[in-house]
Amino acid sequence: MTKSNTSPLSGTRDFLAIDVLKRAYVIKTIERVYQGFGFEPLETPAIERLETLLGKYGEEGDQLIFRIMKRGEKLTRVVESQPTEDRLADSGLRYDLTVPLARVAAEYQARLPRYFKRYQIQPVFRADRPAKGRFREFIQCDLDVVGSTCMTVEAEVLNAAAEVLNRLGFEGTSSFTIRLNHRAVLRSLMHVAGIDSQLEESALVAVDKLDKIGLDAVHAELIERGVPRASAAQLINRLKEAPEENAEMLGWLRALLTSSAEGLKGVADLENVLRYASSGAAAPHLRIDPYLARGLSYYTGPIFEVAVENYSGSVGGGGRYDDLIGMFSGRKIPACGFSLGLERILLIMEEQALFPTQLAGQPQVLLTLFDEETIPAVLELATRLRQSGIRVDVYPEPAKYGKQFKYADQRSIRWAVLMSPRELESGSLVVKDLVSGDQQEVEIGSVPEWLAERVI
Amino acid sequence: MTKSNTSPLSGTRDFLAIDVLKRAYVIKTIERVYQGFGFEPLETPAIERLETLLGKYGEEGDQLIFRIMKRGEKLTRVVESQPTEDRLADSGLRYDLTVPLARVAAEYQARLPRYFKRYQIQPVFRADRPAKGRFREFIQCDLDVVGSTCMTVEAEVLNAAAEVLNRLGFEGTSSFTIRLNHRAVLRSLMHVAGIDSQLEESALVAVDKLDKIGLDAVHAELIERGVPRASAAQLINRLKEAPEENAEMLGWLRALLTSSAEGLKGVADLENVLRYASSGAAAPHLRIDPYLARGLSYYTGPIFEVAVENYSGSVGGGGRYDDLIGMFSGRKIPACGFSLGLERILLIMEEQALFPTQLAGQPQVLLTLFDEETIPAVLELATRLRQSGIRVDVYPEPAKYGKQFKYADQRSIRWAVLMSPRELESGSLVVKDLVSGDQQEVEIGSVPEWLAERVI
Repeated sequence: MTKSNTSPLSGTRDFLAIDVLKRAYVIKTIERVYQGFGFEPLETPAIERLETLLGKYGEEGDQLIFRIMKRGEKLTRVVESQPTEDRLADSGLRYDLTVPLARVAAEYQARLPRYFKRYQIQPVFRADRPAKGRFREFIQCDLDVVGSTCMTVEAEVLNAAAEVLNRLGFEGTSSFTIRLNHRAVLRSLMHVAGIDSQLEESALVAVDKLDKIGLDAVHAELIERGVPRASAAQLINRLKEAPEENAEMLGWLRALLTSSAEGLKGVADLENVLRYASSGAAAPHLRIDPYLARGLSYYTGPIFEVAVENYSGSVGGGGRYDDLIGMFSGRKIPACGFSLGLERILLIMEEQALFPTQLAGQPQVLLTLFDEETIPAVLELATRLRQSGIRVDVYPEPAKYGKQFKYADQRSIRWAVLMSPRELESGSLVVKDLVSGDQQEVEIGSVPEWLAERVI
Repeated sequence: MTKSNTSPLSGTRDFLAIDVLKRAYVIKTIERVYQGFGFEPLETPAIERLETLLGKYGEEGDQLIFRIMKRGEKLTRVVESQPTEDRLADSGLRYDLTVPLARVAAEYQARLPRYFKRYQIQPVFRADRPAKGRFREFIQCDLDVVGSTCMTVEAEVLNAAAEVLNRLGFEGTSSFTIRLNHRAVLRSLMHVAGIDSQLEESALVAVDKLDKIGLDAVHAELIERGVPRASAAQLINRLKEAPEENAEMLGWLRALLTSSAEGLKGVADLENVLRYASSGAAAPHLRIDPYLARGLSYYTGPIFEVAVENYSGSVGGGGRYDDLIGMFSGRKIPACGFSLGLERILLIMEEQALFPTQLAGQPQVLLTLFDEETIPAVLELATRLRQSGIRVDVYPEPAKYGKQFKYADQRSIRWAVLMSPRELESGSLVVKDLVSGDQQEVEIGSVPEWLAERVI
């Protein structure tokens, strides 16, 4: 036996009890809300065909895919001829949940309902350089509606996301804003500022950095990217004069884009999103931001991003992408989705102390073991307590009480039951509150009831 | 856009809604029971260091590990020199949950409680040849207690496993038996039959097949493996005369093994397991079977296996393995565990119709959309229904009712709400029971209450 490196691989994490329970608390909340909105769950394998994964995430993305090596003879043949990265591997690890969704939408077309409203909460894998808050294995929580172009979809998706944050306790100093924009509006704004359609994509990359680098730097970058000075100035100045309030903003945009049918359609979409979402959890948080860009180039309609007060970055985002889900089906399938950033949410909840003090799943009572003779009686009591719905740990072997209380403390168990042969004979046990130190005699038959009243 | 192969990779599976919900139902039951027994959850990464995985599962196991390729320069260097399987890869996929447990026990020694009672429910990956019921990615459900040699551990582990099966509805034609044996008893039985200790391991392999090939074939195989004819005959004859009932069996074993201190210790252990477990769910199912072998060579004490009536194979098994968990710590750490076979359990539950008719998580009500004008009112009703805890799907766009009912049917939604402008004006909606075809007018304000009474 030799000491080995037993830390988890760089960029991956072990989750001990308290972390698993905290993560499960958030995930269960997400699931419950998403199910409440009529979404159904989907799970796909961690391992996908390499051909399914490659070419979907850009060149940089392809490099971040974990490739799984061929085995046996297949591998030998490749090694003996001309081994290349792609020839050595035959499969890879799931990189996101959108490509699997597209694959599933193609594969089960005939079995899936006309509108496929699914959520998927599973780990994804990226061979990225590990950094603070960036992991090589992390959970994605995706919510998507496949099959409809109606803005009810956007409204429902946004209301579901906002409802999750509400249920998790995001309010006060950690309240949130949902920034809402539309790709057509953004494009038309560039167009009316005189930016050539060939420069649009490039200009969008600059505008996308607004949050991080500020107005002046975006202005400079636009010019650097070849946008004419006049156009860049016009775009930036417009931004400065845009009104705050949503209804005013819609009017302002409509006036500005009056010459662009595409732009006006975008404004109408946004108006419908606001109108349809008005009774739901998202309503008070929605703010139209005509310069929200979101990096991913596959968006085609409304886009959104959730920011939490006093925190930079976002806890989630999404939008409409009508050209992506059909990638395996060979036909155009509209879709709109939202992805919650679980790791960011956990981080903020930790800092803002948003977790319940007692997490569901933690043991509530420790039955101590005085000696061997009493073991059957103690285990019988354990059975009865568990039948009353109490989570009961039994110290596995007789030991000094001090040792057993220390163990209870390590496991954050508040109540300890003491049961010596003398106590068994008297028909009364001692229950000790390890927080206050108080202890009380309780008649053995009423212990389950006595504890049930106190542990919840 | 071209048609690609969109089926999941051979040996892996996609799980659509109903399958996810069924699996979640079983997993939640397992979790709740294990937490009730004071166990804490653990989650480890899917990707482990190759050095952590290799050499732990025998030569055959090593071949079944999915290896992840190095990337970038590291890969180039290997490819350009002498590429070998091990040099091309730097990590691999989790093969089981026991090695990660051992790694975690070593890594977090100082933080973990004195006795580490953990469960872990996560997928494992094996590059096995796919076959019926054998997958390359499948969930393992492990329960282990690390740190104690006391038989309370075996009793608790067995009671927890049996409680899971009880809660899942295993009874009647799908009731179960927990076969219980002890490695020391098995070894001593061989010893008193005159089987040389060097032949023990090999003889064990033969005995392990008893279930599958029967007495005579085991007899023949023992001789084939070099066991003297007299010894083989004695071992087989003993088996024939062994009593059925547990207490008699213990007496019979004690008499037989009277000359073997090791054997008697084993019998005493088994007696304690029975005594300690007597008040729990396992008690009526436990049956001592002195020829249960269980393949894995790492067991050191009691071993057990759960068989379901009318089904061959097992739905779970485990035992004590006092020499394994210390593999990374460089010291001996006792442990005992149990692994439930989720896939087998699901299969039997399906065949025996043990799932609840309405699985938690399915949508309960569909709000139909009559026209665009009514969308805000419909979505407002959706919000109110969800606030009452009802799971509500909204048809995403206006369409003929027939289409919308068909969609509800595809999603197994029983209740549909109809809301035209005329109905909105009248203040009463129509709720349709899609199973019976009945429909009823309900005053709009009382719809949540009306439906809440019916959907649960």
